[in-house]
Amino acid sequence: MKAEIIPTGTEILLGNIVDTNSSFLANQLSLLGIDLYFISTVGDNHERLLHTLRQAWMRADLIITTGGLGPTQGDITREAIAKLLGEEPKVDKKLWQELQNLFSHYHGRIPQGNIKQATVIPSAQIILNPIGTAPGWWIEKDDHLIVAMPGPPDEMQLMWEEGILPRLRQKMTGAIILSKIIKTFGLAEAKIDELLAPFLALSNPTLATYIKPDGIYLRVTAKAQKAAKAEYMIAQKEADIREILALYIWGTDNDTLDSVVGTCLKAKNLSLATMESFTDGLLSNTIANSLESSAYFKGGLIACCNEAKVAFGLDPHSIKRYGNESSQIAQAMAEVVRKNLHADIGLGIAGTMNPCEKAGNIFIGLNSDKFKRTITRNFPGNRLRIKQRAVYAALFELRKILIEEV
Amino acid sequence: MKAEIIPTGTEILLGNIVDTNSSFLANQLSLLGIDLYFISTVGDNHERLLHTLRQAWMRADLIITTGGLGPTQGDITREAIAKLLGEEPKVDKKLWQELQNLFSHYHGRIPQGNIKQATVIPSAQIILNPIGTAPGWWIEKDDHLIVAMPGPPDEMQLMWEEGILPRLRQKMTGAIILSKIIKTFGLAEAKIDELLAPFLALSNPTLATYIKPDGIYLRVTAKAQKAAKAEYMIAQKEADIREILALYIWGTDNDTLDSVVGTCLKAKNLSLATMESFTDGLLSNTIANSLESSAYFKGGLIACCNEAKVAFGLDPHSIKRYGNESSQIAQAMAEVVRKNLHADIGLGIAGTMNPCEKAGNIFIGLNSDKFKRTITRNFPGNRLRIKQRAVYAALFELRKILIEEV
Repeated sequence: MKAEIIPTGTEILLGNIVDTNSSFLANQLSLLGIDLYFISTVGDNHERLLHTLRQAWMRADLIITTGGLGPTQGDITREAIAKLLGEEPKVDKKLWQELQNLFSHYHGRIPQGNIKQATVIPSAQIILNPIGTAPGWWIEKDDHLIVAMPGPPDEMQLMWEEGILPRLRQKMTGAIILSKIIKTFGLAEAKIDELLAPFLALSNPTLATYIKPDGIYLRVTAKAQKAAKAEYMIAQKEADIREILALYIWGTDNDTLDSVVGTCLKAKNLSLATMESFTDGLLSNTIANSLESSAYFKGGLIACCNEAKVAFGLDPHSIKRYGNESSQIAQAMAEVVRKNLHADIGLGIAGTMNPCEKAGNIFIGLNSDKFKRTITRNFPGNRLRIKQRAVYAALFELRKILIEEV
Repeated sequence: MKAEIIPTGTEILLGNIVDTNSSFLANQLSLLGIDLYFISTVGDNHERLLHTLRQAWMRADLIITTGGLGPTQGDITREAIAKLLGEEPKVDKKLWQELQNLFSHYHGRIPQGNIKQATVIPSAQIILNPIGTAPGWWIEKDDHLIVAMPGPPDEMQLMWEEGILPRLRQKMTGAIILSKIIKTFGLAEAKIDELLAPFLALSNPTLATYIKPDGIYLRVTAKAQKAAKAEYMIAQKEADIREILALYIWGTDNDTLDSVVGTCLKAKNLSLATMESFTDGLLSNTIANSLESSAYFKGGLIACCNEAKVAFGLDPHSIKRYGNESSQIAQAMAEVVRKNLHADIGLGIAGTMNPCEKAGNIFIGLNSDKFKRTITRNFPGNRLRIKQRAVYAALFELRKILIEEV
């Protein structure tokens, strides 16, 4: 089955809102094994919407529209679909009564303009909207399925989950498509491409790479008649990839660097404390994003000036000798905060920007009773981007040492 | 001028990423007075991308593509544009040398696959990418303008701002559309709507409201033949709005709460230190986002457990008496860190989640030689959202006290 999503609304084309509906629906369709080839965003203009619907009718079996089901003159999705199918919209009296009841419950008497929302064409089934006045439409006609849903994301998602998805699942037969994301850090995309070149040309499972702030992701996608078969194909490919990329892989699917580090620390019953200068608290905040971080993360120190470094216990002579921001200082920071907060592991990040080059030097210090390690990295970009890369690099190195040495 | 945006990438069609580039570009185009009628998202498939480009060529003067400029086999935007225009891509030796230099600086020898990124067609001008290996293209041909930019949002935005926008402005003539954003905190959107009701119905200048993490934004947009006239219309409207919303307004346009607080602190020659529990370093990281923060921000303490609070100097009896997370503790945190780091002002944030209600109680403490203030707020949402709101609330209160009392 081929699908096309048609997000409608001039507010999208003016950049007033970010269209998150399409990403939600795209993900849902991929899990159902439905191929999505186009997302065609169009404004509240009858002619252009009708053109877009007609084009989708030519190239897709399933057309999903979002938006344009409100009570205003700018809401034209119902009218455009009616025109596409050559049908006449009429007021559904029972639906109109329901909308009146729903509305009066929250806001008093319903404005007459809302009667638009009670219009239906003969081939449409009404999909109720439990949290808004815009009902959806489910239309099966001439081997096509059209689904029209409201634009507000909470209304759309609830309607999808309760009213659309169960019906769609019943209609689905045939191939299943499954995906798995494999997450890496520390290798450039082109290098990964080179290492995995033989796999990248294959068509089932397919392999694709993309760049994220926390590394390069690989997506393995398999198509098969049964889920178990697709899972097996993905597992085989994952094993091949792991053999090549080994320790550069830090997680899969919904894993985050903070969550995998947290899992390691909890498993080994170790506590962590951090001290940062260059990253200003981004490291501690990222670590604490994991809901269970209170089990292992004690806290941190942020020194934005030398005075603060000294107030927190760093040796002023070392600072003078090695420089404010250096690998020796990063190691000293890790040790100071570990002892200060009685933690098992101390993690320090220092760094400097090189403003001429738009690049930064990052110094990471890891310190415990059992190990001392210092890592230096150079990242391109502006300061905020380098702060983020530094935090992910530090968590990646912490994970590595937890696996290798502790 | 009519524009069409073509976001490319199978990762969008699989729902793996949300396309925020289109919203950014749509907003930029609207400010330039360029009509955007379609956003046509397509995957990494040569035939479908070429079809989409050809359709855009028929109905738009300006075509903007994002994505597909990477070094991998899945990156096909260059090839598709070359095909659209009937031109032959060739390696630009100077560009290839530049990419090799850029790459070797960070990662060692460049993989041969990256040579793709140095290919150019005769009608394309190269737009440099200061923070990545994917250069953009600017193509003027047959009364059309095609702009090809990389997909990662930070690379795309920087290229847009430095390489594309200045050229595009030069080409633009006709009516000028100008906008100004007025930023508020502390009032609900419905309340602002009520207060500003008479203005919201007007058509030039128009007034629109948006919800953002750091408050409610108002956008005033005026259209006129000359910039000076549009600026005057906006200034008049802004004065009206300021009279009504007064101290709830904290900034305009590119102001951020951290930058306006920083400006106040610098003007008054005051230094700041922070102590956080609930917000885990997000406060200090936000304050330090301002490039000049080293002039006033000394650093911070993050206490994720009571042990850390005591290690940092809080009185264990107070903690016992008032509770770990309370307004008294937030005030004590502000005082402790101020004295610890010899700062003029201490800012403390404590807080608790109420998991049943999906809401949080936030305690903000402000402390100096001259004032002590404690503020309690209740915010709905999940933990990450409430952390963010708490940080903005603290900065908003700090700004208020700096204006009113210092």
